[in-house]
Amino acid sequence: MLSRLIAALPQGAVVTDPAATEKYREDFARAGSAGRPQAVVRATCAADVQTTLRWAGEYGVPVVPRGAGTGLSGGSSAVEGGITLSLDRMRGIEIDTESQVAIVEPGALNAAVKHAAAEHGLWYPPDPSSYEICSIGGNVATNAGGLCCVKYGVTSDYVLGLDVVLADGTLVELGGKRIKDVAGLSLLKLFVGSEGTLGVVTRAILRLIPAQAAGATLLASFATVMDASRAVVAIRSRVRPSMLELMDRTTINAVEDWRPHGLDRGSGALLVAQSDAPGTACEGEIETIRQCCVAGGAGEVFTTTDPAEGELFVAARRSAFVALEARGTLLFEDVGVPIPLLPELVDGITAIARRHAIEIALVAHAGDGNTHPVLIHDPADRGAQARARAAFDDVMTLAIDLGGTITGEHGVGRAKKGALPRQLGPDVMALTTRVKHALDPAGILNPGAII
Amino acid sequence: MLSRLIAALPQGAVVTDPAATEKYREDFARAGSAGRPQAVVRATCAADVQTTLRWAGEYGVPVVPRGAGTGLSGGSSAVEGGITLSLDRMRGIEIDTESQVAIVEPGALNAAVKHAAAEHGLWYPPDPSSYEICSIGGNVATNAGGLCCVKYGVTSDYVLGLDVVLADGTLVELGGKRIKDVAGLSLLKLFVGSEGTLGVVTRAILRLIPAQAAGATLLASFATVMDASRAVVAIRSRVRPSMLELMDRTTINAVEDWRPHGLDRGSGALLVAQSDAPGTACEGEIETIRQCCVAGGAGEVFTTTDPAEGELFVAARRSAFVALEARGTLLFEDVGVPIPLLPELVDGITAIARRHAIEIALVAHAGDGNTHPVLIHDPADRGAQARARAAFDDVMTLAIDLGGTITGEHGVGRAKKGALPRQLGPDVMALTTRVKHALDPAGILNPGAII
Repeated sequence: MLSRLIAALPQGAVVTDPAATEKYREDFARAGSAGRPQAVVRATCAADVQTTLRWAGEYGVPVVPRGAGTGLSGGSSAVEGGITLSLDRMRGIEIDTESQVAIVEPGALNAAVKHAAAEHGLWYPPDPSSYEICSIGGNVATNAGGLCCVKYGVTSDYVLGLDVVLADGTLVELGGKRIKDVAGLSLLKLFVGSEGTLGVVTRAILRLIPAQAAGATLLASFATVMDASRAVVAIRSRVRPSMLELMDRTTINAVEDWRPHGLDRGSGALLVAQSDAPGTACEGEIETIRQCCVAGGAGEVFTTTDPAEGELFVAARRSAFVALEARGTLLFEDVGVPIPLLPELVDGITAIARRHAIEIALVAHAGDGNTHPVLIHDPADRGAQARARAAFDDVMTLAIDLGGTITGEHGVGRAKKGALPRQLGPDVMALTTRVKHALDPAGILNPGAII
Repeated sequence: MLSRLIAALPQGAVVTDPAATEKYREDFARAGSAGRPQAVVRATCAADVQTTLRWAGEYGVPVVPRGAGTGLSGGSSAVEGGITLSLDRMRGIEIDTESQVAIVEPGALNAAVKHAAAEHGLWYPPDPSSYEICSIGGNVATNAGGLCCVKYGVTSDYVLGLDVVLADGTLVELGGKRIKDVAGLSLLKLFVGSEGTLGVVTRAILRLIPAQAAGATLLASFATVMDASRAVVAIRSRVRPSMLELMDRTTINAVEDWRPHGLDRGSGALLVAQSDAPGTACEGEIETIRQCCVAGGAGEVFTTTDPAEGELFVAARRSAFVALEARGTLLFEDVGVPIPLLPELVDGITAIARRHAIEIALVAHAGDGNTHPVLIHDPADRGAQARARAAFDDVMTLAIDLGGTITGEHGVGRAKKGALPRQLGPDVMALTTRVKHALDPAGILNPGAII
């Protein structure tokens, strides 16, 4: 039956050589549980996606859509015997300067969209730490966030239009270049964050905004993560910074080991804040943030309006995951809570680390209450692996108990789906299943992800 | 069978006296086509809504949810023999200052939420022109916009959580106080803008942001609407004003007739722009806008940093619909196009007015490409009524042909559902129906709205 798919697609689009398909099996969660796909389809256009889904529907073959494979929840992990539908060849980017939108194919990298927009003085804000290597399709699939969300919102806020291939191969065009549109149900937003379980995005129309000035940057050190997170609560109640990030001592030292950035290794926690308020207003905002940090017991507080100097600290923060990878096998959490509960979350995570004797590094989009506890363990130590799994689960339970979420921006994928019913409850799970069945009755789209 | 509902609800909750139910029949679209409900239920809590929907499901009775009845598309027009489920008694508002959210019942007025937030130095941005009399439930149902959307986005951008009663009476809690949450499908956003066809909102958790300073205001007059809309395109490509509104000559004169605001009756069009950029940055933005207006051929350009003076012009703009009502029966359009096509849309509307010999006033959230052509006719003149209907349809077709939308913020309701398939096409309509059936298989929720 695969021969029919091979015949229907452009030459070379169907890859079956195990050596070649291997790199399409796992995402960055590296859960080790991915199956072996019978083939990887490297689509070149929407019609290839339609052909693949029609074929899959006919034979009941699962299809896992995949962008750049940088996901952190196993959302694009291959399914045994299924098709992994890679969009990595579809990288077109067109900038419509007058409408201030980017028309983008799903395989285009986030950074490529930013660069293309910047050539016209425009800006695509969403900026996952992985923005240089992650794709727009993956960003849409997970409703990705990033560092600027605290002021500028998440991917969903910038998606004005989507072309989506449905499970039966129908291509629908949702939304368009208009800024406001309430004609019909909000189907557009339903597909954002659906992790490939409802359809495959083949084109996105993304809102751009005028580029912002670099502004001012602050770096503040605290004795403890608790002190830093209390300062975050205070800052958020007074200003809207364009960035408000946190790193704990483990992360600081991992970053410095990986590549020295001049961070204070002795700090219990660092906050990195930016303001891009226009003109001199950014200095006023940074001064307010500085006052909150000092009042919150900060040790050193450093501020700068030099963009290069500011970018150095932001780059340090962005490198956290890569730097931590040098220290062992990682499990990536993405839990979020209402902002005032950030100190309680942080405190609870410390207790979980102690209870399970597992090292947990903390990096956070603190200004949004969205944290990334990173569980580190030695892969050779099977006891540690089991303890890490238990701690991983406990952190999600803690977030749920605090009225929070198991995932703020990475998605549920396969890594967190066990905890999803605990967060949503049976009625919302039933509603989720009803919507899923309405759109994908045969269940061929990314089975095993989310539900 | 109604007796069972009466017995199950608090005393006085079910209103059947025709004199009392009359005011719950039409919304502000005043289409004259509303049916007579067998009863109006004035819910006092979510349990009342659940009871009503369970009863309606059992007997197959249509239920039309209704907020303040200020809708402009007939979305809450009563269905003959159905139940109109009014949420106007559920007006609770609680402000959580630390989490920066408002927890609001659906009958609370938008203005009441703004006032409650302002007492804590916080701001709920979405501001339909009707904000003093429209309800949050209606705002969520239509994904309402307003004047500040050009910088601050629409209702959907501020909805962090919803309690929704589904067609079968199940109450689901979606989202919560956390800023970022991608756990599971985006069901929360699906309900926003669903116009009561998928469920009934009984509580909303709304994001608040720190209150912004009043900033600076600009008023510019142009010889023609075309000139003004070209200036809008230029302005939008350079800055992000916090307001960018347009009124044409008919509107200006209607507003001045209704209540003098000192507007120039001789202008072909006026732009009202505001900047709330912090500190002195607002003056810089207003200066950029002034330059765009002058370069675009503006006659008089007036700027002020006096908040009271600025508010006078904004109030003039907000009063447009009320002022126009003095001139005849109105049909409210809500068409939007990609911003660069605004001049073409405006030009086309002028041609339609001429072709059908109908007066069309124009007010617009110009900065978003979202316009409100208002068709005015003498209700006693049946020929004019027919011509107005034809022109109403032509304006929607024009917007669709320009890659735009039939509704940017008012919703489809009953007034625009005939045009919806033209905009969405058969595949998206089929998808819409599939989602609707999945959530409301018996079709009891607001039948006749949207689809």
